Amino acid sequence: MRLRGRKGIREDLEQQQDLVVLNPEAYKGKWRERFNNDYPIHVEFGMGKGRFVSQMSVKNQQVNYIGFDMYDELVRRAAEKTRIAWNEAELGDPTSIQLALANIENIEDIFTPGEIERVYLNFSDPWPKKKHGRRRLTHPRFLEKYCRLLNSRGQIHFKTDSETLFEFSINSFADYGLQMTNISLNLHRDGINEEHVMTEYEAKFMGKGMRIHRCEVIVGQDALNEYQQMRLDKY
Amino acid sequence: MRLRGRKGIREDLEQQQDLVVLNPEAYKGKWRERFNNDYPIHVEFGMGKGRFVSQMSVKNQQVNYIGFDMYDELVRRAAEKTRIAWNEAELGDPTSIQLALANIENIEDIFTPGEIERVYLNFSDPWPKKKHGRRRLTHPRFLEKYCRLLNSRGQIHFKTDSETLFEFSINSFADYGLQMTNISLNLHRDGINEEHVMTEYEAKFMGKGMRIHRCEVIVGQDALNEYQQMRLDKY
Repeated sequence: MRLRGRKGIREDLEQQQDLVVLNPEAYKGKWRERFNNDYPIHVEFGMGKGRFVSQMSVKNQQVNYIGFDMYDELVRRAAEKTRIAWNEAELGDPTSIQLALANIENIEDIFTPGEIERVYLNFSDPWPKKKHGRRRLTHPRFLEKYCRLLNSRGQIHFKTDSETLFEFSINSFADYGLQMTNISLNLHRDGINEEHVMTEYEAKFMGKGMRIHRCEVIVGQDALNEYQQMRLDKY
Repeated sequence: MRLRGRKGIREDLEQQQDLVVLNPEAYKGKWRERFNNDYPIHVEFGMGKGRFVSQMSVKNQQVNYIGFDMYDELVRRAAEKTRIAWNEAELGDPTSIQLALANIENIEDIFTPGEIERVYLNFSDPWPKKKHGRRRLTHPRFLEKYCRLLNSRGQIHFKTDSETLFEFSINSFADYGLQMTNISLNLHRDGINEEHVMTEYEAKFMGKGMRIHRCEVIVGQDALNEYQQMRLDKY
């Protein structure tokens, strides 16, 4: 989402250093210290207004979340939403969530290998023109980065309403040699799936017959071993 | 497709022993002899009225095709269609195609390991009820059979208009550990893809906005090695 810069946004963000990170490169290899605990770190690349990541942080207190976006106005809105969500849940000030301003191109300047356990990609920009394929966050060149940064329990969880982006992405996962599972071509086919926290976008368009596609990708070796044990149990 | 038996069908089929095989078990391990050449054998499981397999046999003279169905009336129609197609193409009597009456449950009584090179599954019965999941031709228990029978260049090509069967099937392929590629969620998105021979069903419903899902599964080791060489070239 492209938003015009508004005066005062940066100043606002600079006042929120408990929640907002404007220089995430400074924490490379030190995120665990910043969270001051040993819980796994889950990141959302392209959090938009932050509904998903803020609700997840309220729901799962034993996970550290970092939401990323490249637009400062979106980081500001996500911060606002996060404070409201934590307040409503009577959890006090947000602690296990950080909101960071960054371009996903640069994530290798932001994390060391194995520093994160899960990547969420929700409704990423489909970049529909073929010549922009390299910009899609599920292009093999991004998968390569994610795989380097994920730990032995690492997974990628991806959802989108774009049929063409989903098609591109599952081909990309398969061709890159990654193990997919729990692929859904219509996540809410049998009514709202309460297990899944929805994004703003998803909540807004759900009622309009939009089809959400979703899949999980198992990257880390320990996660793969565990999956191997039960991969055919559901059949 | 369930059809009422009609008197005379069996007698008709018995008159066509050049093209129709009523006892395919008798050719286990001997299909190459029956075709009297060394071309690879491609099979279609559930050929219906046989448009796909008959047109493929006209188009690709250096492949041997065997179309299977469990209903004798469909085998009869496929035989008729095949003779017409070969005749129209001025190819004479059909030689590189056989049409067989069989239940796919029994394919291990019909082929020896490595005897076939490609399995086509086109618009297989979706068996929508969960309790019938084991009957779907992409259930892991069938994949196990196909994998045993396919040779080192073996592939499975699957297409369906059923979103739920496709979802089930790509999960089944992934969970069974098979390598998918060329996954399409809407085969004819950019207009008719002339490369793909259509089934009756596909041709009939194409104009009505039906979405065809398709994917290829690479099974044999030589095919996998070749795929490995170029899997990321398209990105």
